[in-house]
Amino acid sequence: MPRAGPLRIKVQLFAGDEPAFGPGRADILAAIEQEGSITAAGRSLGMSYRFAWALVESMNSCFAERLVESERGGKHGGGAALTDAGRRVLEAYRALEAQVMEAAQGESLEELSRLLRTPDS
Amino acid sequence: MPRAGPLRIKVQLFAGDEPAFGPGRADILAAIEQEGSITAAGRSLGMSYRFAWALVESMNSCFAERLVESERGGKHGGGAALTDAGRRVLEAYRALEAQVMEAAQGESLEELSRLLRTPDS
Repeated sequence: MPRAGPLRIKVQLFAGDEPAFGPGRADILAAIEQEGSITAAGRSLGMSYRFAWALVESMNSCFAERLVESERGGKHGGGAALTDAGRRVLEAYRALEAQVMEAAQGESLEELSRLLRTPDS
Repeated sequence: MPRAGPLRIKVQLFAGDEPAFGPGRADILAAIEQEGSITAAGRSLGMSYRFAWALVESMNSCFAERLVESERGGKHGGGAALTDAGRRVLEAYRALEAQVMEAAQGESLEELSRLLRTPDS
């Protein structure tokens, strides 16, 4: 999740009460796009096979359209790719993260940064 | 932490690698101001005595000045109050939270909201 200086902002989206999207899910979508499989994407992020699949299944059920299409089975667990909806969600989420990080820069953050102890204070 | 519609944003501040301030710490500062003691503040938030004290000690060590002054001991564990620095941190943090929530409203969030499954979809 984005971090700049002392600041980190976590943007989470909910479908009703269920967490639908956030930094971990954005990372797995990006990794699926790069790796072409859910298992390989999870591995590249240090997630277990089960955990990566569970994230994808939860995401798919929280959005009106599936974000990831996968072929189950096969020797290597099948391939996977983002759907159009998956790409749109990832892009809009990254834009939203950037937008709130930029908006956070200002007087309140400067005041907080001044009050924080720094490694050399 | 602030939540509006499907969106929740968690603003966290770090002193080096140590979490220095975030929604839980803001809540305990506000509760100390209201209750006048760390123990009572923790209780009002459903935190154990130990957990509330540990949060306060961590906060005090992450900022250049202490945020909470407390009198230990006594029958009821002593009173506690925010210092000037504590009030400034709480106020600046709430302003920062409001600022990023407001900045998040816009096209990217609308796009994400449209793509999310809603309870009646």
